[in-house]
Amino acid sequence: MDRAEAGLNAANQVRRLAVVGVGLMGGSFALAAKRAGVESVVGFDLDAEALNAARALGVIDEAAASPAEAAAGADVVLLGTPVSAIPALAELVCAANPAPHVVTDIGSTKTAIIAGLSDRAAERFVGGHPMCGAETSGVRFARADLYEGASYFLTPSARVRPMVYERLHGLVADIGARPVRIEPDAHDQIMARVSHVPHVLANVLMNQVGSYSAGGRRALHSVGPSFKDLTRVAGANPRMWRDIFVENREALISSLEAVQEELDEFCRQLRQEDLEGVVENIGEAQAYRRQLLELEDLEPENLFRVVARIPDQPGVLGEVTGALAEASINVEDLTLHHFNRETGGDLVLYISGDGAAGSAAALLSARGYPTFISSPRASGE
Amino acid sequence: MDRAEAGLNAANQVRRLAVVGVGLMGGSFALAAKRAGVESVVGFDLDAEALNAARALGVIDEAAASPAEAAAGADVVLLGTPVSAIPALAELVCAANPAPHVVTDIGSTKTAIIAGLSDRAAERFVGGHPMCGAETSGVRFARADLYEGASYFLTPSARVRPMVYERLHGLVADIGARPVRIEPDAHDQIMARVSHVPHVLANVLMNQVGSYSAGGRRALHSVGPSFKDLTRVAGANPRMWRDIFVENREALISSLEAVQEELDEFCRQLRQEDLEGVVENIGEAQAYRRQLLELEDLEPENLFRVVARIPDQPGVLGEVTGALAEASINVEDLTLHHFNRETGGDLVLYISGDGAAGSAAALLSARGYPTFISSPRASGE
Repeated sequence: MDRAEAGLNAANQVRRLAVVGVGLMGGSFALAAKRAGVESVVGFDLDAEALNAARALGVIDEAAASPAEAAAGADVVLLGTPVSAIPALAELVCAANPAPHVVTDIGSTKTAIIAGLSDRAAERFVGGHPMCGAETSGVRFARADLYEGASYFLTPSARVRPMVYERLHGLVADIGARPVRIEPDAHDQIMARVSHVPHVLANVLMNQVGSYSAGGRRALHSVGPSFKDLTRVAGANPRMWRDIFVENREALISSLEAVQEELDEFCRQLRQEDLEGVVENIGEAQAYRRQLLELEDLEPENLFRVVARIPDQPGVLGEVTGALAEASINVEDLTLHHFNRETGGDLVLYISGDGAAGSAAALLSARGYPTFISSPRASGE
Repeated sequence: MDRAEAGLNAANQVRRLAVVGVGLMGGSFALAAKRAGVESVVGFDLDAEALNAARALGVIDEAAASPAEAAAGADVVLLGTPVSAIPALAELVCAANPAPHVVTDIGSTKTAIIAGLSDRAAERFVGGHPMCGAETSGVRFARADLYEGASYFLTPSARVRPMVYERLHGLVADIGARPVRIEPDAHDQIMARVSHVPHVLANVLMNQVGSYSAGGRRALHSVGPSFKDLTRVAGANPRMWRDIFVENREALISSLEAVQEELDEFCRQLRQEDLEGVVENIGEAQAYRRQLLELEDLEPENLFRVVARIPDQPGVLGEVTGALAEASINVEDLTLHHFNRETGGDLVLYISGDGAAGSAAALLSARGYPTFISSPRASGE
């Protein structure tokens, strides 16, 4: 169905959109909104080059000289800036004349933003957090379909006017996302656990291993696939993540304390050689991971891990995955563990079904790549 | 160079190899040893089916009825069994008549195994730990080149005869691996940090998120790429990992305590809103991750993250990577974040060079897959 023809009640109500901070996320929101029938988009960005690019690319129709100028007379203002700038910007754009009807953001924490808002801003502001994209990419990658199918948290506070929420909800649906209403505090607690704690643990693990040596050997020189998976996000954008961690510090601290308690309990089990306790702890993780795979429509009991050693050359990955595709073998998940230019790396494929996994291994093996299969639940590494 | 023709001093000294536990690792060791000139391999496995398969596949030349029978008269005995079985098996095979010259294992912890050995076993035993393969895969995937280029830790104790170590060192080099000598305790301390702690953290994170709900929503329903990367090994083989954790509990506990201390310090920084401390913590992780990438011959400053939303269909991955290969674009690292059958997933590619990353994004975009680029150091998610 052409989205421009779908019942666009909300977008039809939104004639003018202002985007403050035109990166990948804000720019894609603008393009999607225009596709959904929004008549004009005005943009502002502190980075004049980004603003010009947005204008030149047709992502926005007009460039404003200030956030307030962009917001004046807008039906919806989207703040696509870092979290720390949002409270002040929300006040600024709500003071525009005429004041905008709806103000929203795309930051990854919500409670702290709302807490200090004046009544004028609070009655217009509904926090948003789309589960797609990357805040740090540029507007040149903006695309109208970025939000297609993505969950999009909306966190109305008790102070917001109901009509404001409904309008934003409609617009979010019109750009192709799936709006999910949740309390700001519940949002922040969940994000602390699913996103912020993982980043903290990745950093801590990276620091622990990076600084450790024994027997004249650095631990960093002996890392394997599990370490690389766990630290892929380590050290990501220090200033942006500082803001996120500090903005969400209450939920993050309580989440980290819960992690600490489980670690305490696990160390106690180890000290007491409580073998059953240790197995239960791992078994619990196994059961939850099974639930996660099932949410992804995968059958964990049926999922096999195929590991192939491949050289570090441009054609190999394409050859391998092309051959799998020709044999109609679907890859559910994959990850590459690069060693170095000389040795290449291990390509780890997750494939459903004993038969398909066996065929994949045979096929890779026949091409001369050392390959083996294991059940992911039996992953040894 | 044909390995069978390379100067095979060690393998020539090893005429008879015994493999107790013929899985992927033991079986591949056998094949590699035969290729290197070892005359005969005798095998034993508690699993009669695996033992028959090893014989039928030509991985071993003879099947023995017991570990002692396999070991009698062998130059080298490889114990390819779970860690917990190794001390007793080491005694058993050293009591064979005639006693084997060298006994080694492939378990992932070393100190606890050595501690209780009798003098007769201790003077013959050198612990080994190859950094490749998966202990739980079957013998049918055994291949002579599994160990090619892999680091292979050797952990001689003070009690072992020097000649025993030299012989094993030579054999490990002959099968194509790179022997790395390290003290048993240093090995266990390093493995605790680079492998066992990551598994514990993956389990704890999985349990914390699996059990958490807020605002009527399960946290598990809101996980993103970072969580999936961090929990890919969660719940792996509870019995095998229980053994590893418990065998290495001293090093593991002290490593987890160091993690706890850093988490305490990080929480203190959050409570005090010590912005500089938080940035330093992340910046330290960034510096260590840079070192890790450099070990892999990658230039972190030059490494871009290209994210493409692709559907869950057999041909797509092959099409995408095939197109990148045709354009001579090399993929340094990749990971797939599967959402579900309907939405597909995000393919995350790491590509060196602004130009190559831009070309990759343009190419994927042109094929209709929503694509954007970010610097991996700026990874937002």
